[in-house]
Amino acid sequence: MLSKSQIKLITSLKQKKYRLQHGFFVVEGLKGIAELLNSELELYQLYTTESFEDKSEKEVLITAAELKKISFLTTPNKALALFKIPKIKAIQTNGLVVALDDVRDPGNLGTIIRLCDWFGVKELVCSKNTVDCFNPKVIQATMGSITRVNVSYLDLERFLENQTMPVFGAFMEGENVYSSALPEQGVLVMGNEANGISEAIENVITKKVSIPRFGDLQATESLNVATATAILLSEFKRAK
Amino acid sequence: MLSKSQIKLITSLKQKKYRLQHGFFVVEGLKGIAELLNSELELYQLYTTESFEDKSEKEVLITAAELKKISFLTTPNKALALFKIPKIKAIQTNGLVVALDDVRDPGNLGTIIRLCDWFGVKELVCSKNTVDCFNPKVIQATMGSITRVNVSYLDLERFLENQTMPVFGAFMEGENVYSSALPEQGVLVMGNEANGISEAIENVITKKVSIPRFGDLQATESLNVATATAILLSEFKRAK
Repeated sequence: MLSKSQIKLITSLKQKKYRLQHGFFVVEGLKGIAELLNSELELYQLYTTESFEDKSEKEVLITAAELKKISFLTTPNKALALFKIPKIKAIQTNGLVVALDDVRDPGNLGTIIRLCDWFGVKELVCSKNTVDCFNPKVIQATMGSITRVNVSYLDLERFLENQTMPVFGAFMEGENVYSSALPEQGVLVMGNEANGISEAIENVITKKVSIPRFGDLQATESLNVATATAILLSEFKRAK
Repeated sequence: MLSKSQIKLITSLKQKKYRLQHGFFVVEGLKGIAELLNSELELYQLYTTESFEDKSEKEVLITAAELKKISFLTTPNKALALFKIPKIKAIQTNGLVVALDDVRDPGNLGTIIRLCDWFGVKELVCSKNTVDCFNPKVIQATMGSITRVNVSYLDLERFLENQTMPVFGAFMEGENVYSSALPEQGVLVMGNEANGISEAIENVITKKVSIPRFGDLQATESLNVATATAILLSEFKRAK
């Protein structure tokens, strides 16, 4: 059974300010929850239509109708869990770091977190206006990768200014990435969906790179930020 | 002013069967409409809150409240147009062809069409169960690329069986794509979001390729089909 106050708490977590206030975020679906249970994240409460035997003390059995009331999904998937938002971890700047300058779309951030995980990028640093990584749509898109990539929100300009590693930025008019020397240590900055990298951040970039366009030169406007990140991470990581 | 029958026609076009019946598809937003007006696609009717001077004979001026009634978007964007679904064009199999085996998500298909456009891939062939390219969410995600990529729906198994070009498929356990010989002419097959490439299609693939994983080997399950397509197209097109 779900109480009114539980429903109110859970549905409030769609908004960042309530996530910060309560310190919880929402994960839905058996597979996503299982991945997070298997990580160092701490479960707070599990609302489920099927018992997870070993989690009984934190488990609340609910009906499908109750799940529908608290779910953020059009098609709820058997269970919804609240996990504690983890403590902020120090950034380890060895290896490749990805930096996001105001990426706003939750699906894009989720996909980029998953790409970092695939390509072994441990640190993702984000400008303060980048969408929150505990947004339910981001969590749904990461497929558990959120547990393996350290996502930090900070003053991106100051962070980049203080780097001794080279800072690469994705631009339309940069050097052809296929012929660029790409080091193992560095920061790769990706910009906002509509405006790209802001002027303030552009000023602290040491090398501009771009993905050459093979189609009609007058046509395709740009690549989506998540697909551009995929291609650039692949270039950094493949054997040269 | 919008009549009831116009509203009924437009809103019905969310569904494939009505698109096929009427022969129209919907594009929304000034930018998307402008791109399509600039192509060989034929405009049928333009519903807009601001006049497009040179289109007056096909233009219906409407209010923002009327636009809200016919729009498929949460935030309607000034205009909505119906274009005629173009006649089926013959497939030209020279160069690289991308083939999709039951890709179901409209956002993924839209992103893949945009990637084909970027990388100069003219032909995208789709299994019959792949999401319809005139679905409004696909059109919204393609950003005009739909006018420059020929998308065909066909019996994919038969199409691939009859190819003389090599047929590549993206698999988890394929040859490392970074060290594979990738020809200029060929077909690249990408699979369904949940199940990958089906057994029937697997049987007609001549070479399996995969994108190596650099992160924790036990962890990241897979890449999204659109990001995997981005990386593989980049590999086919970059100078080796």
